[in-house]
Amino acid sequence: MSERACEPGDGTEGAAAGFDGLWSELADIGRDPRGGYRRFAYTPAELELREWFRAAAEARHLDVHEDRAGNLWAWWGPPPAGEVPAGQRAVVLGSHLDSVPRGGAFDGPLGVVSSLLAVAALQRTVARPPRPVAVVAFADEEGARFGVACAGSRLLTGQLAPERARALTDDDGVSLAEALRATGRDPTGLGAQPELLSGIGAFVELHVEQGRALVDLQAPVAVGSAIRPHGRWRFDLAGRADHAGTTRLEDRDDPMLAQARLVLAARAAAERRARRGDAGAVATVGRVRVEPNAVNAIPARVQAWLDARADAEEEVRAMVAELEAALGTPAVEESFSPRVALHAPLAERVARAVAGVSGAPPPRLATGAGHDAGILAAAGIPTAMLHVRNPTGISHAPEEHAEVADCHRGVVALTAVLADLVGPGAPGGGQPAADDAGGGR
Amino acid sequence: MSERACEPGDGTEGAAAGFDGLWSELADIGRDPRGGYRRFAYTPAELELREWFRAAAEARHLDVHEDRAGNLWAWWGPPPAGEVPAGQRAVVLGSHLDSVPRGGAFDGPLGVVSSLLAVAALQRTVARPPRPVAVVAFADEEGARFGVACAGSRLLTGQLAPERARALTDDDGVSLAEALRATGRDPTGLGAQPELLSGIGAFVELHVEQGRALVDLQAPVAVGSAIRPHGRWRFDLAGRADHAGTTRLEDRDDPMLAQARLVLAARAAAERRARRGDAGAVATVGRVRVEPNAVNAIPARVQAWLDARADAEEEVRAMVAELEAALGTPAVEESFSPRVALHAPLAERVARAVAGVSGAPPPRLATGAGHDAGILAAAGIPTAMLHVRNPTGISHAPEEHAEVADCHRGVVALTAVLADLVGPGAPGGGQPAADDAGGGR
Repeated sequence: MSERACEPGDGTEGAAAGFDGLWSELADIGRDPRGGYRRFAYTPAELELREWFRAAAEARHLDVHEDRAGNLWAWWGPPPAGEVPAGQRAVVLGSHLDSVPRGGAFDGPLGVVSSLLAVAALQRTVARPPRPVAVVAFADEEGARFGVACAGSRLLTGQLAPERARALTDDDGVSLAEALRATGRDPTGLGAQPELLSGIGAFVELHVEQGRALVDLQAPVAVGSAIRPHGRWRFDLAGRADHAGTTRLEDRDDPMLAQARLVLAARAAAERRARRGDAGAVATVGRVRVEPNAVNAIPARVQAWLDARADAEEEVRAMVAELEAALGTPAVEESFSPRVALHAPLAERVARAVAGVSGAPPPRLATGAGHDAGILAAAGIPTAMLHVRNPTGISHAPEEHAEVADCHRGVVALTAVLADLVGPGAPGGGQPAADDAGGGR
Repeated sequence: MSERACEPGDGTEGAAAGFDGLWSELADIGRDPRGGYRRFAYTPAELELREWFRAAAEARHLDVHEDRAGNLWAWWGPPPAGEVPAGQRAVVLGSHLDSVPRGGAFDGPLGVVSSLLAVAALQRTVARPPRPVAVVAFADEEGARFGVACAGSRLLTGQLAPERARALTDDDGVSLAEALRATGRDPTGLGAQPELLSGIGAFVELHVEQGRALVDLQAPVAVGSAIRPHGRWRFDLAGRADHAGTTRLEDRDDPMLAQARLVLAARAAAERRARRGDAGAVATVGRVRVEPNAVNAIPARVQAWLDARADAEEEVRAMVAELEAALGTPAVEESFSPRVALHAPLAERVARAVAGVSGAPPPRLATGAGHDAGILAAAGIPTAMLHVRNPTGISHAPEEHAEVADCHRGVVALTAVLADLVGPGAPGGGQPAADDAGGGR
């Protein structure tokens, strides 16, 4: 996509209108006083975002509906019901509104805002959509509160069992079931919703890039090609609590030493693979829990979470196996997402639509981050992604950024994609679904 | 001390009477459902322990008084007031009631219960003590809630500035001043209380051993010789928060790697010194705080606390300097306690009294743990310690233990010490105070 998107004369100049105003409505919701945002599922900040979504969608004459998994849908035209022929299936755009702790402003909300604006732009050119159109805001995509990423889309597609979901707890011991009840929701209704999914012909998620590939390529927007395999593992490192001042070194069983070895061994395992040419190989310990976590006590137990990703599934698994062997401790797999190839014919069509408004074919990008798009793709729904350039390359942190001009270009691109997809030709002709067995993000 | 303590005919058989009953009153206060005890300063569990102390002391006709630092005093005979000649200064026994997170039953309470029983035993032989006698329960010895160990005795002796104490906060951001106010106490009254200290001729603290020396020596009770130098340092390891899945290894600034290197380097620094013959050299990272502590985020910051101890102060400082150099990061000294030599003439007298009831001279023990006894010794008060055998050697954990028979022997020994100290001969003749500049525990 060249830099001429959004300039007069290409017929899309109005698409980004309204971005700045709609975007600014989110600026103060869920700010963390130390910087960034804290927008955890079903907390006051996230409930405020839901109210914002409802109002913004209704202002655009969309019918808002919350599904049984807490995902919010804003429909333009009647939602599909019963057996729907491929040509009448819905085109759905969207992303999520929640954040990691001290997360950035863009991861999630940029896609939701862009989707609402793309629908509004289409509304200015057609009175009634040729097929149903919706914007979705998926619930609890980050998994920051209850530990399972993409919980809303996993529940929707049956990739997360309702009984497991209800029993998930946050750091205060509050279960997801309790959190749902506390906000007036019914946790007994959780479960796969095939009646909703079967009417969807295509899903497109626009997302801020979570790396620097587009900076290097000098391109504002890319089309997704794949989501690399990734997973989360928990190492429960047992030791023996004891006095830090009086216990001789030889009498100690200090699990913090094992945690330290895990951190360094994980980094080394990823570095070995990066040197062999797998630039996407990463292994990170970003979360630990220490008991009792007292200055003068040798810990009784340290739990350390490993996030591991690579180009090939077998390399992700090999890294985990190496670390298990090095520590002599089996890891608990909390989630694993195999490689998801996004829908190739849809990506082709999306790329053509983007090229049509930008004058140049957009680059293709495989991402190391999990997304609701990956969950829907694994469930057999034709799915595509657009990535918007992030000048810092940083994500999941306050420094995450996208220039306003690039955000406008993203809206223009997404509008062109939507206009194309609601037209003739049937997205959802189908490609065998990738097999997905759970997963991190 | 031989195993014949507490047997009929040595005149002390009654001293341990009542131990089992009084001890059992504490069994259910502040239990952590996961095991051990959680008795943090000014929490409901600790307030219940204070009520128990008040009732137990009053049942023994002692006058209970809380000083301005929250320490509880139970007096037999009128407390000393004004200028007191050495021969009329008080003999004080005691320890503390609070615990570390998931701490053991004995660290602190064993000394308080034994002290109350020793006074009760003396009450059965004399109607009125020749000099004032008190049992003290020091406040917040572990520093588990507000971070500064021995806060009560430090405030009392002026080793902790009132303005610093008031501003200390717990993990929920509650300040000590707020916690005091919430329990009906006046934080404006904090400060050194020389009028109370000047009337004390001797302080003796009985404590469960926090290591296995007495197991190896096959002795139930030891007399303390010194408290080894120790301190707490905080390493603030800065990095840059980023997405764990999409940030290339070479673009990362991950502070968890520095934390891991610190943990292993601390252990290695202590091991080098242990190999050179300093068996008490230890360096431990028992507490960490990770921000944002999310599985899929590279941390923005890791704080790691180092507890370091050795036989010589310069070796403690050298270990910290080595770690600072290895990490390229200065550490924040949160507390440092130089070596405290307990009062040698008093220790001699205490050892003779113990030998008198046990038939054998007790071993002398230097401890790596900090105690209120060390704080009082540093303030110039003649101070002694008794250590009771711990068969597990484990402390600051649920497995901390002392056999009932050894607890009885401890009470017998402490009773003999008290009976001796209230008699002729003036404890408190004085020895220059060690210099103490703060300190951990």
